[in-house]
Amino acid sequence: MQQIIQCVPNFSEGRDLDKIEKIVSEFRGKDGVKLLDYSNDPDHNRLVVTLVGEKEALKSVILKAVGVAIELIDLTKHEGQHPRMGAVDVIPFIPIKDVTMEACIELSKEVAQALYETYKLPSFLYEKSARNSERENLAKLRKGQFEGMSEKIKDEAFSPDFGTEIHPTAGIVAVGARMPLVAFNVNLNTADVEIANKIAKNVRHLSGGLRYCKAIGIEMEDRGITQVSMNMTDFTKTPLYRAFELIKIEAKRYGVSVVGSEVIGLVPMDALIGTAEYYLGIEDFSYDQVLEKRIME
Amino acid sequence: MQQIIQCVPNFSEGRDLDKIEKIVSEFRGKDGVKLLDYSNDPDHNRLVVTLVGEKEALKSVILKAVGVAIELIDLTKHEGQHPRMGAVDVIPFIPIKDVTMEACIELSKEVAQALYETYKLPSFLYEKSARNSERENLAKLRKGQFEGMSEKIKDEAFSPDFGTEIHPTAGIVAVGARMPLVAFNVNLNTADVEIANKIAKNVRHLSGGLRYCKAIGIEMEDRGITQVSMNMTDFTKTPLYRAFELIKIEAKRYGVSVVGSEVIGLVPMDALIGTAEYYLGIEDFSYDQVLEKRIME
Repeated sequence: MQQIIQCVPNFSEGRDLDKIEKIVSEFRGKDGVKLLDYSNDPDHNRLVVTLVGEKEALKSVILKAVGVAIELIDLTKHEGQHPRMGAVDVIPFIPIKDVTMEACIELSKEVAQALYETYKLPSFLYEKSARNSERENLAKLRKGQFEGMSEKIKDEAFSPDFGTEIHPTAGIVAVGARMPLVAFNVNLNTADVEIANKIAKNVRHLSGGLRYCKAIGIEMEDRGITQVSMNMTDFTKTPLYRAFELIKIEAKRYGVSVVGSEVIGLVPMDALIGTAEYYLGIEDFSYDQVLEKRIME
Repeated sequence: MQQIIQCVPNFSEGRDLDKIEKIVSEFRGKDGVKLLDYSNDPDHNRLVVTLVGEKEALKSVILKAVGVAIELIDLTKHEGQHPRMGAVDVIPFIPIKDVTMEACIELSKEVAQALYETYKLPSFLYEKSARNSERENLAKLRKGQFEGMSEKIKDEAFSPDFGTEIHPTAGIVAVGARMPLVAFNVNLNTADVEIANKIAKNVRHLSGGLRYCKAIGIEMEDRGITQVSMNMTDFTKTPLYRAFELIKIEAKRYGVSVVGSEVIGLVPMDALIGTAEYYLGIEDFSYDQVLEKRIME
């Protein structure tokens, strides 16, 4: 693969293993596409698939898999803890290698258009593909969920980018381009979740912290400690080390220490290499010096 | 490529671009092998080629390229700053992905044997392939160079592993398996190379420092600073951060600070990911979480 785009479609089926297999099998053994991972959660009643591929190949497998999902999933009968608005809830495209964000935005629009033309499935363009900043945030678009969507889209601010009516059983899907997310959690040696929450507030964008950082405080009861749980939404601009060092600084005022961290799920190697570059103070480092990058070329 | 082995053959020709091209072209466009880099130095009169590939494919291209080098290079007429003992001076094999050191040792022996059988080219097995610890070090084997080699190998301690006589024009080659080297230099805010040398002595294996670290102090005249210039010979056991932090500690006693570092040439991503893991204190990190590792699988 010359160009690599990641795609992480979320399907609203986390319980019926037969249906899950039918959806996932659409991503297996296809030219130009590689299935990296999938996981289904019965409580959330949701399936998250991670794949990488080239533009045209991704477009083609996504189109087919959504067709299968529309046949198998009926949102009028769907329940689960995770908010959802469609049989296919969200389809993000993420630039990984030798591909621009613009190309991913273009791809997201082509896919959204094809989904409407093929299945009459309406869509919101979200994140970098959104038509304005009010429509970037997935949670905001999804609020009201499947059940409230027919009413919600009457408001022009929430009119679909493709389609005018909600699909009767498959709802509506958010399609868009975004940067890779890194789920990065920093552990604190305090059991007091209030302190973790205060630190989270200090580092996150929403309340005055770092531009590309979302954060909440959470308890880790089994270990008697707490955690600042973060989503780093653009590690190329807000790198991991900056959040980590800032948490250490904020923790100090509460007499609390950082005792470790964790990275959940997949992480692009550049996020970690950038961290090494910072701490070792490496001058004039080129990512082309990384052996595996050269092998992948 | 499932299995990836790196190979960095050094040829004793750094001046004649026509000959260099003939050697390098043996590595281009071959199935199962990828030419990553090559550079020739006229002062050293030496060509360093970096390639990766699968076992059998590497064996086959190396065998052919050495044949070409033997035809083109006559060591009786060779001069240059870099010590050398053969038309092909050294052929190291380095495990990169899904391959053991043992497999690389085996490969080095097969290649050495084939070189003798095909071209009557004798060889020393060095590094991890050496028959005893006295024969691991390349510099030690090469001492006396091409001109002194016929005499030197009469000493049983330096008898070739394959062959009994030096090739009249192509000399002898060292073949072996080794870990990837990382060339890692740490800059100091002092112009006094004596201090850099003292620190180098403190951190290097030879004089009481870290097991897999070679180090010397050098001047960087244009910047008015000095450098601890290191070869990290096994970053999986002596990681980069350990040398870096130790240099900071040793520098303190001279009132000197570390002002940066540099990585020269190619570096395996694990060396940098391990560094990030240390500084962020990431718990339970699996290298399978690195997106690019999954893509390469």
